[in-house]
Order: sequence, then C-alpha cells, then structure tokens
Amino acid sequence: MTSTPLTVDPAARPVDAPGPRRGLGVGELRLDGGFWGRLQETNARATFQHCLDWMERLGWLANFDRVADGTTGPDRPGWQFSDSEVYKLLEALAWEHGRTGDPTVDATFRKLVDRVEAAQDDDGYLNTCFGHPGQPGRYTDLSAGHELYCTGHLLQAAVARARTVGPEDRLVAVARRAADHVCREFGAGARAGLCGHPEIEVGLAELGRALDEPRYTEQARLFVERRGHGTLAPVALLSPAYFQDDVPVRDADVWRGHAVRALYLAAGAVDVAVDTHDDDLRAAVERQWARSVERRTYLTGGMGSRHQDEGFGDDWELPPDRAYCETCAGVASVMVSWRLLLATGDVRYADLIERTLYNVVATSPRADGRAFFYANPLQQREPGADVLPDAVNPRAEGGVRAPWFDVSCCPTNVARTLASWQAYAAFVDDGAVVTLAQYAAGDLRVEVAGGELVLRVDTAYPHDGEVRVEVRSAPHGPEPVGGSRAVTLRLRVPHWASQEGGAGATVTGPDGVVRPAAPGWVDVAVREGDVVVLGLPVAPRFSWPDPRVDAARGTVAVERGPLVLALESVDLPDGVALEQVRVDPAVPARVPDDVEHRDGAVVTARVEPLPEVAPGRPPFGPDGTPPESEGPLEPAGSAPVDLPLIPYHRWAERGPSTMRVFVPTV
Amino acid sequence: MTSTPLTVDPAARPVDAPGPRRGLGVGELRLDGGFWGRLQETNARATFQHCLDWMERLGWLANFDRVADGTTGPDRPGWQFSDSEVYKLLEALAWEHGRTGDPTVDATFRKLVDRVEAAQDDDGYLNTCFGHPGQPGRYTDLSAGHELYCTGHLLQAAVARARTVGPEDRLVAVARRAADHVCREFGAGARAGLCGHPEIEVGLAELGRALDEPRYTEQARLFVERRGHGTLAPVALLSPAYFQDDVPVRDADVWRGHAVRALYLAAGAVDVAVDTHDDDLRAAVERQWARSVERRTYLTGGMGSRHQDEGFGDDWELPPDRAYCETCAGVASVMVSWRLLLATGDVRYADLIERTLYNVVATSPRADGRAFFYANPLQQREPGADVLPDAVNPRAEGGVRAPWFDVSCCPTNVARTLASWQAYAAFVDDGAVVTLAQYAAGDLRVEVAGGELVLRVDTAYPHDGEVRVEVRSAPHGPEPVGGSRAVTLRLRVPHWASQEGGAGATVTGPDGVVRPAAPGWVDVAVREGDVVVLGLPVAPRFSWPDPRVDAARGTVAVERGPLVLALESVDLPDGVALEQVRVDPAVPARVPDDVEHRDGAVVTARVEPLPEVAPGRPPFGPDGTPPESEGPLEPAGSAPVDLPLIPYHRWAERGPSTMRVFVPTV
Repeated sequence: MTSTPLTVDPAARPVDAPGPRRGLGVGELRLDGGFWGRLQETNARATFQHCLDWMERLGWLANFDRVADGTTGPDRPGWQFSDSEVYKLLEALAWEHGRTGDPTVDATFRKLVDRVEAAQDDDGYLNTCFGHPGQPGRYTDLSAGHELYCTGHLLQAAVARARTVGPEDRLVAVARRAADHVCREFGAGARAGLCGHPEIEVGLAELGRALDEPRYTEQARLFVERRGHGTLAPVALLSPAYFQDDVPVRDADVWRGHAVRALYLAAGAVDVAVDTHDDDLRAAVERQWARSVERRTYLTGGMGSRHQDEGFGDDWELPPDRAYCETCAGVASVMVSWRLLLATGDVRYADLIERTLYNVVATSPRADGRAFFYANPLQQREPGADVLPDAVNPRAEGGVRAPWFDVSCCPTNVARTLASWQAYAAFVDDGAVVTLAQYAAGDLRVEVAGGELVLRVDTAYPHDGEVRVEVRSAPHGPEPVGGSRAVTLRLRVPHWASQEGGAGATVTGPDGVVRPAAPGWVDVAVREGDVVVLGLPVAPRFSWPDPRVDAARGTVAVERGPLVLALESVDLPDGVALEQVRVDPAVPARVPDDVEHRDGAVVTARVEPLPEVAPGRPPFGPDGTPPESEGPLEPAGSAPVDLPLIPYHRWAERGPSTMRVFVPTV
Repeated sequence: MTSTPLTVDPAARPVDAPGPRRGLGVGELRLDGGFWGRLQETNARATFQHCLDWMERLGWLANFDRVADGTTGPDRPGWQFSDSEVYKLLEALAWEHGRTGDPTVDATFRKLVDRVEAAQDDDGYLNTCFGHPGQPGRYTDLSAGHELYCTGHLLQAAVARARTVGPEDRLVAVARRAADHVCREFGAGARAGLCGHPEIEVGLAELGRALDEPRYTEQARLFVERRGHGTLAPVALLSPAYFQDDVPVRDADVWRGHAVRALYLAAGAVDVAVDTHDDDLRAAVERQWARSVERRTYLTGGMGSRHQDEGFGDDWELPPDRAYCETCAGVASVMVSWRLLLATGDVRYADLIERTLYNVVATSPRADGRAFFYANPLQQREPGADVLPDAVNPRAEGGVRAPWFDVSCCPTNVARTLASWQAYAAFVDDGAVVTLAQYAAGDLRVEVAGGELVLRVDTAYPHDGEVRVEVRSAPHGPEPVGGSRAVTLRLRVPHWASQEGGAGATVTGPDGVVRPAAPGWVDVAVREGDVVVLGLPVAPRFSWPDPRVDAARGTVAVERGPLVLALESVDLPDGVALEQVRVDPAVPARVPDDVEHRDGAVVTARVEPLPEVAPGRPPFGPDGTPPESEGPLEPAGSAPVDLPLIPYHRWAERGPSTMRVFVPTV
C-alpha cells in the first residue's frame, strides 16, 4: 500500500468516446462561485462527510470489513445494493480530487479503498451481500440481487480514478479484477445471465474505454443484447418492462418501466453503439430519447410519472402531484443526453441537460447539502411533515428533504454528479471548435489544435442572461508573428431563448456588433484577446402544457431562463390557500424587486373563494359551473394580487409548505 | 355428512343490527329481469362455475385437500390469501341458494364445504398456507400472512348460511370452531396481535350477531381497538397507514392507506359500535366516511387514487387516468355505507350505495360474467391489449377485463355482492315504515307490524325514471272490515334528481296528485290496492368537478340517472382521436336515438387539430396559447359534431379502446 499522492491530469475526461468530439476534463474548467460553483463547494464541504457518516452508522461500510474478516452473515444490514452507495461516493471523491487536487479528499478516498479492496475475493468477485458464509450464493438472484449493478458502480468509480490520476491505481486494479470476473462468469459461452438493474453495461463500457480493454466493451455489448427477451425471473407483480426485459434495446421506441434502469441501460447502450460503430443501436436510443422527451418528460426535465414502479407512464401521463421524477433518474438522463450530445452534436441534448441539471439535480440537495429529495413532484398538495434529522426515511413521499433514506441511492448520485459538473459543460470538436454547452463563471484551459486555448467566462447566469467570454490565450500559428490562430467558439442559445414578440438572444462579436441569435449553436471565430458576449433573455415567461397533458389542463407554468419556477404557500398573503389562486395570463410575469425572490417572478392573480364542500357527496356535481368562457378574464371575488414565485429548485427550504409549478388559470 | 336440502328462510338478512331498522332478507325481494336481475342471472349461470374452474385449475381448492391428507408443503400454489377466494365463493353460493332455493347451488356449496371442513385442524385452526408440515408456523407473519383475513371471510360465508338456512349447518359449525380458536389465541390476556389486512373484525361481528354470541363481538372489538398503535411489523417500504395502524379507529378523521383494508375495517368498526352502543366509535366512522366521500371519492363512487399501495391519496387527489378504484373497494364501500344507513337512516349513504353499485360493482364483470376489471380507472389513454382467455393476469393495468388474476380478490367479491343485491335494496323501520333504497322491478314480500306487506315494483330503471309501486297486500287491522292498515312507504329521491332549471323528481300518490319531490326521503301512506309512482329525471346532465380536483380541471362529465357515462374511442368518427374532442357545455346533453347507445347520451363537441409535437422537447412551452377566454365557444378547426356516450359500466365491451369520463371543454 502506497500513500504517495498521485498526480492529477486536469484534462482527464469522464467519458471519452471515439469520434470528433471530446468532453472536458474535470480539471480543465475552474469555477469561481456562481450557481454550480457554490453547489460544488457545499458538496465537498458537507455532503461527502454526511454520506460517509450515514454509511458508517448504518453498517454499510462495515459490511466490507466483515467480509474481509469473515464475520458477515445473514444479519448483514442494508439492502442488497448498499455497496453501490459506497462506490458512488468513491466516484464523487475521485472527481473532486481530480478537479481540485485536494489531498484531504484523496486521503478519504484511499481509506475507503482500503476497506473495499480487503473485501474482494481472490477470484475478483466483490459483493458484501452474496457469496459468503451465511449469505445466498453468488448470482442466485439476478432479477433482484443487484450484484452486477453494484459492480457497475464500482467500475464507474474506478473510471473516475483512471481519468484523473491514471490507470495505475489501487481502485482501478480492484475494478479490473472485478470486471475480469464478470467476463469469465457472463462472457460468451459462459452463463447467459443479465442483471435486473442495468448499470454493469455502462460501467464495463466506460472501463473498457478508460483502460483500452475491448473485452470489457464486448461484455457490455453482450449484456445490452441479452436484455429484452423476457429471461429475467419475475419480481413480485412487476412486468418484464419494469427492467426493460420486454423488448430488445435496438427494437424499442420509447423508454418504459423503472426510469433509472431504463436510463442507465440507455447510457450503456450508447457507449456500446459508439465504440462498436453500431449505428442501428445508436439510432434506437436516439429514437427512444426523442419520443420519451416529447411525451413522457416533465417541464423540469424530470422523468418517471409513477410511484408504483418508480417508472415511466403512458405517453402524456405527466401528473404534477404524483410525479416521481426520481433524482437518480435526472442524473441518469444527463448521462444519456451527454453521450448523445458527444455522438451527434445535436443541441437538443444540451438543452435537456441544462433543464435537468437546474430543475432536478439541483433541486434534490437542501441548501446545506445534508438532506435530499428522492422524488421531485411538481405539486405538493399537503404540507410535508418535518423530517427527523436522525431518522432513516422511506422514499420521501412528502415535500421535505430527508437526510438519508432506507433506499438511499440519491444522495451519493447527487454527490458524484455535482463533483463532475465540469464534465458536462463543454467539449472540443476535432481540436478546432470549442463548444460551451453550459454556462458558469470560471476559467477554461483546454488543448486545441496548435496549442492551448484559455477562456475566461464572466456571468451571473442564470440570474442574469449576459455571458461574457474573453479569449485570454489562443494558439499561435504560422501566421504573422504575434497573431494567434482563429479558433471557433461555439455557444449554445437555449431553445427557451426564442421568445415570440419578446427580446431574443443576441451575440456581440469581437467586432462589437450585436447580432440576433436563434436557438441552437452560434459560431464565432475568435483570436487571443477577443471578447464575445452572449445575451440571453432571462425575463420570466409563461409556459403552456400541450393539451394532451391532461393533468395540467387549464394551468400555466412560469420559467425564467433555465429555471422552472414554483408558487409556494409560504409566499401567499395570510388567509389565502394555494387552491384559491388563478393566474391571469393576460398580464406578463415580471421580475420581482426583493432579494428573497431573486431569480423568481411576480405574476398577477385573482384569489377565488373556495366552493363549499357538499356534505357527504363526491366532489362532482351539477352545482359546478362551466369555466367562464365569456368576456375577458375578470377578478372574481377579489381584486387582482401580485404573487411571487421562486425557483423550483429552492422550494421547501422555508418549512413545510404546499407548492405548485402549474398554476390554474381557470 | 348429511345431504338433506335445508329449508331457506326468505326473511334472513345479511346484517341485522340492533336498532329500529332491519335490512331485507335476500328472499324477500324477487327481481324479474331488469338491470340487477340480469346481472344476478349471469352471476349464477356463468360466474360461479368460472371461479370454481379457475380455483380448481390453480390448485387453490386442492390446497384444502392437501392439508386434509397431509401432503401440503412449501410448494403450495397461490398467495397466502387464496383460501379467502374459496370462502367468498361459498358466501356467494349461500346467498344464491338463500335467494332462489336452487338445489344445484346448494349441492355445489356442500361439495365445497366438504373440502374446507376436512382441512380444519382439531383445535379449529383452518388455513392452508400456515401451520402444517413444510409451512411457516401459525401466526408467524401477522403483517402480511392474511391468516385472520382468511378466517374473516370464512365467518362471513358462514353468516350467509346461517342467515339463509339457519345456524344448524356444517359451515356454520366450521366457522364456530374457527372463531373460538381465534378468541382463544387473540382474546384478552392472550396474544395482543392483529392482522395486516382487516376483515376478521367484520367477520367476527357478523357471526356474533348471527349466532347471538357476544364473545365474537367482543373479540371483534378487541381487534378494532388494537389497530392504530403502530404495532404491525413493517412490510417492505409501506408505512403503518397502509394497514391503518397509524391512528386508532376512533381518532381518525379520514380513510387512508390501502382502500379495501380501510373499508373492511370501517365496516367491522360500525358493527362493533352499533352492537356495543359505542356512539363515539360510530361517530368516528361517520366522520371518516363524510370526509373521504367529499374529498377522496370519484364520480363513480370509486375509492383509491393510487396504484402504489392500492390506496387513498391526499384530499382532492383524484386522477382519472391513474384511478385505482379497485372493484373490491367498491364492494367494501357498499358494506360500510349500508351499515351506516341502517344505523342512522341518512339518505346520503343510500345515494353512495347506488352510485357505487352502478358504476363500480357493475363495471367489473364482462357481459358474459367470465372476465373482470380489478381496477376501474376513469380514463384509458392507450388501448388495452387483448387479454388471453387462459392466462392468469396481473392486476389488469390495461383497459380490458381479465378472466382471472394472480391476486384474484375481485371476481369472487363481485359474485357474493351480486348474489346478495337484495340485501341492500330496502329496509323496514320499527315494522311500520318500508323504505325502498334502491329500485328494481320485482315483488317484495316483507313482514311489518300486523302482518305481511306485498309490493309489486314495475320499472325499467335506470333506463327510465318511472318507478311504479303497487301495494298488492297490506296487513289488515282492527279498522273497518275489509280495510287495511296504513303503512308508510318511504322512497328515495336521489341527490342527482335535483336539476337546476330542469324537471325535478315527482311523486304521484294514491290520490293521483303529482307532487314535486326534493332529494331525500319522501313518505307516502299507503293501503292495500294503492299505487304510487315515483318519477325521476333521468335525462342526461353535465357534472362539473370541484375546482380543487386538479386532475379534472377544464373538463366535464355526463351522467344520466345513477349512471356515469363515458366517451369511448370506438364511438368516434373515423380519423378522430379522443384527445381531439372538446365538449361544448353550452349545448345540453341529450338522449340518443339508437339502441347501441341506450342509456347513454349525445353531446355536441368540436374536434381540435392536435398540435405538432416539438421534436425533442418536453411537451410544454411558449408556443402554447392560453385557453380561449374570449367570446362564446366556437368550433375551431371543424364544424360541431354530435358524439354518443355510453354508460361507463359497459365500456371496453367492444374491443380495445381509449375512454374518458371527464371530457375536456377547453
């Protein structure tokens, strides 16, 4: 065991696919504050230790020690998948160290690796729930046992390490042995099994890339191809669609079943498709992405309409109140979209990443980084109960973030995603085009053809729509001495920046000319010293549900830049209930002038008296009147009032409350 | 073993409570055809044998034989609660025999009892899943094992027998031994356990009444009081509210958790409250009923808004598409309301019974009585897949009735409820007032003070609103020779019969005078030879959701008499999708003139073009336009069309389809 600090390679990347585009290494962009920078600080300062403490307290870490010293047994605490939480935290620590070089983080990482490594069997098998005295045998419950799922997360953690300090690492060695074991057990000619919870596919594919080991990619391919033939044993009343075993990946048209499973599988399938040049498979995931986004995705980017199976619903089934929108599904959706973005360059993938990062991933952690949303509904009808700080919660039905869960996949998933936010921010095409896909203030230093490009980004985005990019340094070429080569800076104009009749986006080029910029990519040729300013219209705007979204009929939402807003009961005047509010869409939403509602909006609304409850009758009847369909919208029962909305991602920070994203207009 | 046919007592009643009101015996009213008469015929002709065949095929009946001959073990087929299906079928057969005296039905009943009786242990314990070699021990899984639940259904079956042929019966003897065993095991001073699925409470209370055995009532009381203290061991991620173990029955304000459990518990609690004169407990259930009906009940009377736990949701959480509305919850709701109706005489309970019988209970069975809905959603967004006639289905997610289910509680629950429909139709107050709570053509013969009252009811209800009641015979008293005593005939004018601005209900008395009748009870003094005619306005009418029911905002439903109507895709013009339809509420719904849509309605609608899907974008955005709020409703994109609706209870009889009860107006 060595304790020499390893050198961090700042250009190392989380997913480096074949093809013209390469993602940003986590060390290539340093944020200074701002929306994501502050979340990263809290993540490092609070969340890592919070997760460690809980996993120590619940014995999930000791499970590794007990396997190592031979004392594990049927009394092992935690679900079958608790190992994976340790691996996701390892991944988070690896990225954090890779991004910052912080030796404390590295030390924490190494101490955890000591314990994990000690639990690995001689043949590479590593799992604290199966295969040891007093436990079920290895791979005896592929449908529900999560063994390969856990291994997949182990491999992803090792990839984060390989991508930041290089392949000569103890965790990487552990992962190699585990992956080799999987290949022996599940390779062609061996057992044709697959895991009920996809994840091994993406883990193997990433590790195959990181270590240039085609056997792992091939094993990932086998797992992807094996799914969809109804071979997994049923679990309770769940249908094969629950684990995507109903239709082969390359034949499916839409995501269905458990959302996190569907999305981890899709991420692995894209990796396999890209690495094996399987255009048919890639097109299948693109098709599934499009249909699922168009018909099964919330305004927040959240996916999963049903609590029942934590899964997708039918097309257009998007109830705000019972939205599941699991935090992990948001993370997994970003993983899939990022892969498709690199594979295709299509801006729509970057748009969805932004929507999901701001409105799902950032919604989960409490401001102090020590409590989390598991589900992210778009309406809270009853105030959530207070959560005890020391209790293990169920999956957090109510509208309060909880410190830890019985099934606690979300906190560590948030941790690893925030720690590697840089990886989703930018990419380079053929060494000639540098694309900023997400915006944050900071310094970007990246290799391009001919040398290094250094950019300084100044912005208060999303509070403000101005993004100023200064080319601090660019490669110098064979052109006149002192001049730099031209590099193409590609900026994303988000889809939402198209405002009918309002101010659209603009780009101010190095020539100082302000030009309108339509949504999509906008290219600017830049040289050293140039400044480019992107102007995005972040004024509040109304967003209307498609009429096929039955559950949001007669309502409107308010967005501001990339932020979905919400009306929370604590912002209502005394004596007014959320159910009474009707927004007047004829009066535009506008920017509030108080700090508390910074980044929110103000709308004009009327407060309707609530109808009497008919005693002992279901709440339907002839006494209802049709929605007023005549004449302009008039305040009925009260004068118009101004009501402030807040960013959805910050709701439930001011005590139990009710909340809605879609506010009725009728 | 005797095979002598037993005499049927036509006046025997299902639930005979202390107090002034007694329910009708199943033999006291004979239906001739009509809505319920036809359902009863199909039930007897097809459903009983259908259930028997499935339970034989799946080994659920053989489970009893295997216990009897000592060959049962861990390979026992069926869920822990499969015994209860046998008992519910026994109950159905007992009522059917009691109503008709059919010796074939009696023979089938006796053959089943042979097998059940043989499986009873010497000490009275009777369960095919626990307590025998190779099985878990007795009462080792009170939370999920359903042992006492099964016993409760056994007792209810025995009550049906006791109420129709008397207490000297083999099944009654089996039930006595089982109930005595429960009292020994769970009585005061013995183990203070309770069952995860309520049912033993109502079974014991009914048996206590039927056999005049206060020990059973006391044991039911103990079980009711034990619940609500969080003593049941958790099952998976379900909270204590799932089995109502969160709040004591007498303290709760609303039903929550698993709907069938909540309602069976409430039924038992009412029985206990009435029999022990516990007004506080009775008031608690009345309070829960009112709040749950007002805020957690569908237009159909269906209860249960969530698939996740087959349970109630929050107040106002009533999504049409994800409505669970389990058939069994409908049955259980009728059980509760009937008990409260007898206890209080409040007409609202009878109104809810009617709503639930026509729109939940009658919706479940297919016209041929050989397939059933388990869940009864109010919207089907994707056409249900064809159900294989020979397959055991999951809980029927889709919009197709299935012949049998993995958890198959609903078919036998429908069977026992239809077989005893008469029991919910009428009651007698103090021998002086005869109340018709439900209407059907037939002959009623009932004991009142002074002798027998014989009524002839002629009606095509609910197709037609005229109900003609002729007093064929009435007791003769000490008044002038040849004259009969006056008896009060009490008729129910349903809540829906109040039509603002339209024709309301009328009663034509023996004097030939037509009088308006407000919703509620209307009393008419009648003598032999008198004819009373009730006129109910069954013209189609619009029903509007309370604005707090978010999921139905901007929609309207159509009802006709007691029937909720539905728009089914098979009735739309070619090329028109259900999503395109907008009803014009300014044009009244009217009666169709074709036979196919008998009992339905015709509405005027416009067909909206569907918006383009924005490729790769969630279905929300600035491109939406606010609902038209100016000017009268004009056809947009098409001329107005007439569209027929059908009774909801008959949807999905014409092949896979989409359907909605709440049709958008905006």
